[in-house]
Amino acid sequence: MALKAWNIQVNNANKFFDALSNESFLAEIAPGKNRIIYLMGHLIAVNDTMITLFGLGERLYKHFDDAFVNNPDRSGLPMPEISTLKADWKQSNEVLTSYFNQMPASDWFTKHSAMTDEDLAKEPGRNKLSVLINRTNHLAYHLGQLQLFS
Amino acid sequence: MALKAWNIQVNNANKFFDALSNESFLAEIAPGKNRIIYLMGHLIAVNDTMITLFGLGERLYKHFDDAFVNNPDRSGLPMPEISTLKADWKQSNEVLTSYFNQMPASDWFTKHSAMTDEDLAKEPGRNKLSVLINRTNHLAYHLGQLQLFS
Repeated sequence: MALKAWNIQVNNANKFFDALSNESFLAEIAPGKNRIIYLMGHLIAVNDTMITLFGLGERLYKHFDDAFVNNPDRSGLPMPEISTLKADWKQSNEVLTSYFNQMPASDWFTKHSAMTDEDLAKEPGRNKLSVLINRTNHLAYHLGQLQLFS
Repeated sequence: MALKAWNIQVNNANKFFDALSNESFLAEIAPGKNRIIYLMGHLIAVNDTMITLFGLGERLYKHFDDAFVNNPDRSGLPMPEISTLKADWKQSNEVLTSYFNQMPASDWFTKHSAMTDEDLAKEPGRNKLSVLINRTNHLAYHLGQLQLFS
């Protein structure tokens, strides 16, 4: 169910991004607020952290963190071309889906890599599934903002 | 975990609404977009549907549907005073929390009231828990929009 909710939000984001012209990615979601390009890179980078948090492999977009997570929009840090970023968004979701499909159901209830065994013993709800639920809400949060662009 | 995610979003919304003056509720989240008062009423009404969907009792805010769900903002339909609406938001969440706390864990995996037994047999993931997850993402979606107001 949590995976289904994740997929629903990803599909909604796909629909939104697919309908935009490349020029629109440089527009602000509202006057003075983040640009669409920033939110797309931000979502790629934040979603990408699940790869290491779940112990599935190496992150693909760690190099996005500076421009899209650790700093606000218009930091002057380099960003990819829109066409590259759109391909990155697709690839990011394909890679995550492939990883998620390989995970045995029981694995979702194990601790993520930023936790100790003691952490999990104290708070069994702080597991991989809780990270996915959190990332899904994070995606929905920014999707709500993106949808204001018209 | 799903309940924890729900509570996190409700607490984030509480923090946002509590920090606002009553006058601010009449402001738009962005130029030409929904006003804060509309989104608050919308969230109350949509969250309220869980009471009947989960078979917990009668809805408290069905009378909000016309002004806050079935019609867009500025429909001209009457809305409560801000102070009343803020009290309704608190009450809505207290009532839902109280209902949720009474639900046995197994109940979350049963069908919601808008489904038939056949629906659940075909799609066991379409249960009460999936409605809660969906409502949590809906709350996060609009909270992302609300946070643009500053």
